[in-house]
Amino acid sequence: MTEERIYNFNAGPAALPLPVLQEIQASFLNFKGTGMSITEISHRSPAFDAVINDAVERTKRLLNLDDNWDVLFIQGGASMQFCMIPMNFLGEGDTADYVNTGTWSTKAITEAKVQGKTIAVQASSEDQNFSYIPQETKFNPDAVYAHITSNNTIKGTQWADFPDTGGVPLIADTSSDIMSRPMDMSKFGMVYAGAQKNIGPAGVCMVLLRKDFLERTPDSLPAMLKYTTYAAKNSMYNTPPCFAIYTVQQVLKWIEEEVGGLEKMAEQNAAKANLLYNYFDNSEFYRGTAEKESRSLMNVTFRLPSEDLEAKFVAEATKAGLGGLKGHRSVGGCRASIYNPTPMDAVEALVSFMMEFERSVG
Amino acid sequence: MTEERIYNFNAGPAALPLPVLQEIQASFLNFKGTGMSITEISHRSPAFDAVINDAVERTKRLLNLDDNWDVLFIQGGASMQFCMIPMNFLGEGDTADYVNTGTWSTKAITEAKVQGKTIAVQASSEDQNFSYIPQETKFNPDAVYAHITSNNTIKGTQWADFPDTGGVPLIADTSSDIMSRPMDMSKFGMVYAGAQKNIGPAGVCMVLLRKDFLERTPDSLPAMLKYTTYAAKNSMYNTPPCFAIYTVQQVLKWIEEEVGGLEKMAEQNAAKANLLYNYFDNSEFYRGTAEKESRSLMNVTFRLPSEDLEAKFVAEATKAGLGGLKGHRSVGGCRASIYNPTPMDAVEALVSFMMEFERSVG
Repeated sequence: MTEERIYNFNAGPAALPLPVLQEIQASFLNFKGTGMSITEISHRSPAFDAVINDAVERTKRLLNLDDNWDVLFIQGGASMQFCMIPMNFLGEGDTADYVNTGTWSTKAITEAKVQGKTIAVQASSEDQNFSYIPQETKFNPDAVYAHITSNNTIKGTQWADFPDTGGVPLIADTSSDIMSRPMDMSKFGMVYAGAQKNIGPAGVCMVLLRKDFLERTPDSLPAMLKYTTYAAKNSMYNTPPCFAIYTVQQVLKWIEEEVGGLEKMAEQNAAKANLLYNYFDNSEFYRGTAEKESRSLMNVTFRLPSEDLEAKFVAEATKAGLGGLKGHRSVGGCRASIYNPTPMDAVEALVSFMMEFERSVG
Repeated sequence: MTEERIYNFNAGPAALPLPVLQEIQASFLNFKGTGMSITEISHRSPAFDAVINDAVERTKRLLNLDDNWDVLFIQGGASMQFCMIPMNFLGEGDTADYVNTGTWSTKAITEAKVQGKTIAVQASSEDQNFSYIPQETKFNPDAVYAHITSNNTIKGTQWADFPDTGGVPLIADTSSDIMSRPMDMSKFGMVYAGAQKNIGPAGVCMVLLRKDFLERTPDSLPAMLKYTTYAAKNSMYNTPPCFAIYTVQQVLKWIEEEVGGLEKMAEQNAAKANLLYNYFDNSEFYRGTAEKESRSLMNVTFRLPSEDLEAKFVAEATKAGLGGLKGHRSVGGCRASIYNPTPMDAVEALVSFMMEFERSVG
């Protein structure tokens, strides 16, 4: 079975660690001796408590979070967070800053504005087609938070270092690079991530929230749209997405126990990305699209000399067992998404294929 | 492996059909020859399109829905629908009717009120501890909708026939009895159900929506809270909960192809429930808690002569491989949830155990 699997460069949902998939498969009819599938156990059972609590504890250990932080699991993906953040944190007279680095930042900005909230876009890389991360942004010291997208899947850019906000808490959409590297969480008020790229399957969003932000949530919101609801009930006010949380827990266990933590994870991710970027930088045939200092270690975007060659490249790669290399439909080109679970041998196979392809059409 | 599985009477998440679990397990590392797990494929791929479209088509066939209906998959469970329904459908000056038959109806009412919407509770069975379904309710002919909970998991009651609203469209939370019987959908404007009882795992809510209701949704809502967003994008505005939708599709396939449709499903469900209720009605030891004409075919609630005996009953049943029989923590007693996937032999095993237990302590 395993040898029929492809090298998966999907942008999300994306590859998961093979040992995690194998563990889920092996226990799928009988989870931990319960006589039930993980999909059949009660979320109010000791077996599920152990799963969600382990996911929370591993998250806290991996990111060095103290008891001032809540680890929440919420449905609706990062897109639901785009609306919940301003809804919960911006009251009458409050303002927040946003940095626009692409499609997802733009959506976060739109969802704040549609609610009539007062926000300011303090920086944008739209002038250069979002091919870079703005530097030296000046933030409003009175802003409740400053929102950024830490990694931009479509344009292949990433914040290498997080901006100096002068003390304004950062809120970051880290859907495409959470747990890919250590983070200095002292800069942040909240970090959130749809799980389906670096830490799990689609269907759950991890939300790391500094507890003092909970005080901003108005009681008047519907229960499912208030962070306080999730924080008060360990994310189980209603039935949570049990299977997705379980898979996240398994991936976090893999990062902690198999990879060896976020320092090691970051080393592996850098090695994978460097292999590809170094190859581009010495190639006349392939070229990266992001500015060098803003390059993403997660989504490596590149072009070939023509769109015809790009189509041929993607088609032949697919035939050769390298999947998901087509760029986002809004920008074209090619993209290799190499999140945490993607092994080095997949990237090596990709570079070999790229060399061979260039030779064959050159 | 399968012989180590228990008889699962959980209230939700609940039992799934064994053939469905086996199919998911067998294909878990390589879904339909993609070389990827179902958890790793793109939601923008032909493989996933086939899954979600098949789920939609099967739903339409099973419930005889014509093209005036949308079949949507939304995250957040029925609890998110409690807030989205009034948010989308009740504008300035609009009013809606609610019937209160227990915990879940009460929450639906609360979530409308917290938004400042004008609603009227036209009937309630709270006077008798929610042990019956109100009959002969008078509805407001000007109401935009009349909301009911079709089956009440905690108190074990169910609408045997849906009320005559004088033409006001019904909106029903059918989380605990969707697809358990045929429904005359001409009475409804919307039907919704968290999947984790009758049709799948936790993590997705099925929403059946009559298209004319979409015209009520204000543009000013955040994208993820508007039904129009889901309807316009086949539930894929953002990444949907792929695994949960896939499992729902597999359960719907099982209902259609293995069971033979909703008439047959209803016959099986009635036979299972009747076995239990007939046993109670001839017993001095066990007694049902719901009024006879309001009894649920899904959640069979019952008491023993004392709380001590109930605790002993649940403990010994668990040891004997019969799980999930404890009543909801808010009401105590015992409860056997016997949703679509629960086979008759599980109910027969339960009745045998009950007879043996009565003998042993009598």
